[in-house]
Amino acid sequence: MLKGISPVLPPELLSILCEMGHGDTLVIADGNFPAASIAKDCKLVRCDGHGVPEILKAILKLVPLDQYVEKPVTLMDVVPGDDCETPIWDTYKQLVSEVDDRGADVIGTIDRFPFYDEAKKAYVVIATSERAQYANVILQKGVVYENEQID
Amino acid sequence: MLKGISPVLPPELLSILCEMGHGDTLVIADGNFPAASIAKDCKLVRCDGHGVPEILKAILKLVPLDQYVEKPVTLMDVVPGDDCETPIWDTYKQLVSEVDDRGADVIGTIDRFPFYDEAKKAYVVIATSERAQYANVILQKGVVYENEQID
Amino acid sequence: MLKGISPVLPPELLSILCEMGHGDTLVIADGNFPAASIAKDCKLVRCDGHGVPEILKAILKLVPLDQYVEKPVTLMDVVPGDDCETPIWDTYKQLVSEVDDRGADVIGTIDRFPFYDEAKKAYVVIATSERAQYANVILQKGVVYENEQID
Amino acid sequence: MLKGISPVLPPELLSILCEMGHGDTLVIADGNFPAASIAKDCKLVRCDGHGVPEILKAILKLVPLDQYVEKPVTLMDVVPGDDCETPIWDTYKQLVSEVDDRGADVIGTIDRFPFYDEAKKAYVVIATSERAQYANVILQKGVVYENEQID
Amino acid sequence: MLKGISPVLPPELLSILCEMGHGDTLVIADGNFPAASIAKDCKLVRCDGHGVPEILKAILKLVPLDQYVEKPVTLMDVVPGDDCETPIWDTYKQLVSEVDDRGADVIGTIDRFPFYDEAKKAYVVIATSERAQYANVILQKGVVYENEQID
Amino acid sequence: MLKGISPVLPPELLSILCEMGHGDTLVIADGNFPAASIAKDCKLVRCDGHGVPEILKAILKLVPLDQYVEKPVTLMDVVPGDDCETPIWDTYKQLVSEVDDRGADVIGTIDRFPFYDEAKKAYVVIATSERAQYANVILQKGVVYENEQID
Amino acid sequence: MLKGISPVLPPELLSILCEMGHGDTLVIADGNFPAASIAKDCKLVRCDGHGVPEILKAILKLVPLDQYVEKPVTLMDVVPGDDCETPIWDTYKQLVSEVDDRGADVIGTIDRFPFYDEAKKAYVVIATSERAQYANVILQKGVVYENEQID
Amino acid sequence: MLKGISPVLPPELLSILCEMGHGDTLVIADGNFPAASIAKDCKLVRCDGHGVPEILKAILKLVPLDQYVEKPVTLMDVVPGDDCETPIWDTYKQLVSEVDDRGADVIGTIDRFPFYDEAKKAYVVIATSERAQYANVILQKGVVYENEQID
Amino acid sequence: MLKGISPVLPPELLSILCEMGHGDTLVIADGNFPAASIAKDCKLVRCDGHGVPEILKAILKLVPLDQYVEKPVTLMDVVPGDDCETPIWDTYKQLVSEVDDRGADVIGTIDRFPFYDEAKKAYVVIATSERAQYANVILQKGVVYENEQID
Amino acid sequence: MLKGISPVLPPELLSILCEMGHGDTLVIADGNFPAASIAKDCKLVRCDGHGVPEILKAILKLVPLDQYVEKPVTLMDVVPGDDCETPIWDTYKQLVSEVDDRGADVIGTIDRFPFYDEAKKAYVVIATSERAQYANVILQKGVVYENEQID
Repeated sequence: MLKGISPVLPPELLSILCEMGHGDTLVIADGNFPAASIAKDCKLVRCDGHGVPEILKAILKLVPLDQYVEKPVTLMDVVPGDDCETPIWDTYKQLVSEVDDRGADVIGTIDRFPFYDEAKKAYVVIATSERAQYANVILQKGVVYENEQID
Repeated sequence: MLKGISPVLPPELLSILCEMGHGDTLVIADGNFPAASIAKDCKLVRCDGHGVPEILKAILKLVPLDQYVEKPVTLMDVVPGDDCETPIWDTYKQLVSEVDDRGADVIGTIDRFPFYDEAKKAYVVIATSERAQYANVILQKGVVYENEQID
Repeated sequence: MLKGISPVLPPELLSILCEMGHGDTLVIADGNFPAASIAKDCKLVRCDGHGVPEILKAILKLVPLDQYVEKPVTLMDVVPGDDCETPIWDTYKQLVSEVDDRGADVIGTIDRFPFYDEAKKAYVVIATSERAQYANVILQKGVVYENEQID
Repeated sequence: MLKGISPVLPPELLSILCEMGHGDTLVIADGNFPAASIAKDCKLVRCDGHGVPEILKAILKLVPLDQYVEKPVTLMDVVPGDDCETPIWDTYKQLVSEVDDRGADVIGTIDRFPFYDEAKKAYVVIATSERAQYANVILQKGVVYENEQID
Repeated sequence: MLKGISPVLPPELLSILCEMGHGDTLVIADGNFPAASIAKDCKLVRCDGHGVPEILKAILKLVPLDQYVEKPVTLMDVVPGDDCETPIWDTYKQLVSEVDDRGADVIGTIDRFPFYDEAKKAYVVIATSERAQYANVILQKGVVYENEQID
Repeated sequence: MLKGISPVLPPELLSILCEMGHGDTLVIADGNFPAASIAKDCKLVRCDGHGVPEILKAILKLVPLDQYVEKPVTLMDVVPGDDCETPIWDTYKQLVSEVDDRGADVIGTIDRFPFYDEAKKAYVVIATSERAQYANVILQKGVVYENEQID
Repeated sequence: MLKGISPVLPPELLSILCEMGHGDTLVIADGNFPAASIAKDCKLVRCDGHGVPEILKAILKLVPLDQYVEKPVTLMDVVPGDDCETPIWDTYKQLVSEVDDRGADVIGTIDRFPFYDEAKKAYVVIATSERAQYANVILQKGVVYENEQID
Repeated sequence: MLKGISPVLPPELLSILCEMGHGDTLVIADGNFPAASIAKDCKLVRCDGHGVPEILKAILKLVPLDQYVEKPVTLMDVVPGDDCETPIWDTYKQLVSEVDDRGADVIGTIDRFPFYDEAKKAYVVIATSERAQYANVILQKGVVYENEQID
Repeated sequence: MLKGISPVLPPELLSILCEMGHGDTLVIADGNFPAASIAKDCKLVRCDGHGVPEILKAILKLVPLDQYVEKPVTLMDVVPGDDCETPIWDTYKQLVSEVDDRGADVIGTIDRFPFYDEAKKAYVVIATSERAQYANVILQKGVVYENEQID
Repeated sequence: MLKGISPVLPPELLSILCEMGHGDTLVIADGNFPAASIAKDCKLVRCDGHGVPEILKAILKLVPLDQYVEKPVTLMDVVPGDDCETPIWDTYKQLVSEVDDRGADVIGTIDRFPFYDEAKKAYVVIATSERAQYANVILQKGVVYENEQID
């Protein structure tokens, strides 16, 4: 554990978030996402027993969203015909709005299979045990500006 | 790079500092310290080109000093007969005082060879290029209290 | 995730619990325990962000306590002079009583340094982020009887 | 061994089944199947000396069949002109019906070479010593619902 | 699988049995034996789901018992005061008698803790799921004579 | 060494032959064959100092030839214009006839470069020091029938 | 540390620079460059906490620029429409001119995405914490002439 | 294979013999010697299917016997009471005499258990399938003189 | 060091030369050749401080040139317009003529970029510190005939 | 190759020399020294084909001798009764005197077996093919002073 860092983040994940650069992406996957097979060619970190929001909140404290693209946060769109509700998206909007001046506008959606394709290109997949539906998130890291660092 | 974390710390070191617990020690070694051979049975992280103070300052932002021992910071005592000055110790006293209420009192010294023995038991040795003499430091990690964390 | 298994247990931990035999021990360590250095010669599994009780509960569903010793559960005794309370022990007593007919009697305590020595001999150390004091637990696995298995 | 888990499953397989997600597949291969070469790019677990049914039964206790596809169980179709009988399929139908409300309808067949192609994409190949013909099975994992878990 | 070899033996175990020499020992462990921790400094092969007798029988087809010691087969003696029966020993006596002219006389017993000490010196520990009590066996390999080989 | 197994087979090769399945192939290569480079993507076992026939004979005791193809044994055809004799082929025909009812008919030939292509797809390449010309052999493993095994 | 070598260069980087040959390239990346993901198929050396100029200066002492191409130094061109200034380029020009008779003429620029493609082909990516914009540099190593070496 | 080198020596063994220096020892073990367990802390090379003499002869072409000790060749003495003959020793005496001017006098013997102790200190153990009794040999490498090398 | 083998060859290179077969190639690279990057998919052996001729001479003592192709030795042709002299080629011609009856006729040349492509397909690249220009050589290994070996 | 660095030093050795600190030792071993076995617990770098003086000279350009001990250079003393000459020591004295103001006085000798014990504690053993007798050297690294570095 470290001062000022959420204990929910495994040490290895701290290292991975730090070595990511501008434009690299990460996936926070729900409990039924095939995280290990999707992460065949990238890093995999397990956060078993946790939901997506607590991991998302802890990451957003450390990682800026890409300031150079319109939608640095990507959700999987509800499949047409599926009348499933996605209340967890409201939580995501709130968490993002707390750290990014652009607010919930930075959140975009793509269809299921393009989402899988994007997930395979991520730098790291984080496996949670989130039980909500349509809860997977892809974040694209932005630039860490000089005034955000500690000397 | 991450928001709120000094960029002087390598990603791997962040992970190591985080996985250390109460009572574990780390060595910040100067440029002529035999860091690699001393670290034969522990972890080694290189911070080539840096001095000890900038690494020390960045670590103290994240790692509390052991609250359960009197002297959680250990310096190598000047060898009897050596009239070498140790102005860098003043820097260390100031950096420590900024983060620990006990102030410079937490800094102790031991002789050269006991220092080497302690260094071999550390969890990690951090190799710098510090050029000052008697500049090696051993830190003992304390407890991270609940109010020091971010949820 | 699997049917009938708590999602709080990482896949690797399932495997480790399964390959342990009669008499092997495991440590569930709190957030400030030096888990990584204690586990230098044994396995280490991280459950960052969780407390000890939720991990303990999930493990006790799968792992019987040693039926051949009197105290298969070991806590670290409060250091003499320390007036710290240990309310988390009541939680442990309840969880143990739910799965073992011997009840809370199976829980013993040892002093701090013998506890560390025992922890180093464990088959696995499980690192949590538990914030309560005196919260570390050592479990000794018992015999899995034929009628407890599924064919 | 663990309480409530069949001892026929190797510890490593428990871990693998747990880290699989919705849509991942596994192969339970008979004794003459070229399991090691087919599994060149995926995981391989050996269950030498066992038949397919005992492994299948133990896995179905833990792993739900994909609720989003019609045929999450795939057998290799009898080659045209081969008058071989496949009595082991009846065993499979019974085992599947015990755990899935859709019954034997979830079992489909594909031809030999497409079967090999599918097997190569699996997350894990499980090598048994099954002696029956046309005994290889591919399972596609489904969603583990909240009420199927233990807190 | 191979012609003339029992399919119950994993390929890796064939290799290990072959590379063992005169005087090397192996342990066939029951399901509650702490096989993985005992095998910390030697090889470990898992035969989950099998009993000891089927593994013992298959090994005795390939591995001669040491002709230079009186008791190349070692069982764990019943603890004094324990009125447990050991019917599985009769099976062992029969299996041994089928392959060694000295018959059941080659089977000796030692106490529990010396048994553990011997087990730690073995070349390989084979973990089964045997449920009978006092079922662990240590075998000492003998000389393979010229007339027992195939050119 | 093992009872009933030729000592010419390295332990590791026993394991490899055992884990091969129906349809997998192996190459027994002569002393000048570029075994290591051909085996870049498959396993390589060295049998330095031996000829092909002694290895072939030992393997045929354990491995059935594919009963589902006409020519499970493949030799490299003599290059047109080369008046080289291949007396070693007679040895191969005899060895094969001793174990397969189809006799020497199971032996086919292909040209040099297709032979190399097939060799690269093998499960294992076995490097010998055979000095005869056109001595390389590819074997395709068949089904091990129930009556060929030992319980 | 070594005599005559800048301590800013990690030991591993010395080795890498030495084993590079004529025509191999290296990237000195700024703090927001996605160094780890770009370096997926090449070597990665971290110089956290340093700027590009100090690393560039130290490397140019040891590594000649390619004498056989016109532009052995490559910068990322300013994106059209971006009115960002690039004062760090002047530093680069000066550093290059100090070691290469061709002066700043050896510095060329390419667009952002071709720059990324070139970076992926480098022999090593060096990650710094440089905060200036458009600060990434690619160097192409030249021939070390006989008179530049020490016997 | 190489010109002027016996093909009976595996490539890896050539490398090992070459990197051995003055005073290092090697064991050529017979088929029942526990080569793999004795070689737990040293290198192991397998020469399955070969006898000791052919390996000994090939090694003596490349490796000089220690000129600074009286008995650089060590055999295991016949156990008192054992009336076993050791005709293979005559072969060893002849092979040694062909390469060393001191003749068979360089061959010494030690008792069985000291032999095992010496074997464990060897640089490499070479496992053969030699069937003769008392056939194990330890060689101590000598100095390669300048006139024995090729420029 | 070994009797009859040039000490200029590293032990590992002896092993590699021995495991190469008919048709495999090796590159002896000069000091500015990008050996490490060219050898990304093949073996790399360093002979720092040596010239190409001494390595070439030592290799030709052990490795026959391919008797089945006209030009088993390949040099990089002088680039058109380059008036560079290549006196080292005369040394190569002499060394080759000493071991191959075909003499210098076995030496061919190809252009620079095809040379690089061939080098990437080699079994091993040997990095020297040769300072002469156009000094890189590719050798194609031939058949080692029976009369060239030592029993 | 690098500007200003002797090409006789392998890249890996540059890295090792750089990571050594004050008080660490290195061995430059002659061609018959048992370098690989002595270096069992330390690093080993091969410089086959070279003599000790050329390696020593190149190292002394980069590595200062320990200024805090009287004899940072250690040779193996001539064994009493051995009338062997050691002309190579004169070369060593000259090379050392060129870089250290204390001249040849820094060279000490110890007996053969203490020399071996010291060699085993070194940070790295460098294996040469030196043919002179009593040619092994141990160097103890000193402090690299600020004015000896390049910024």
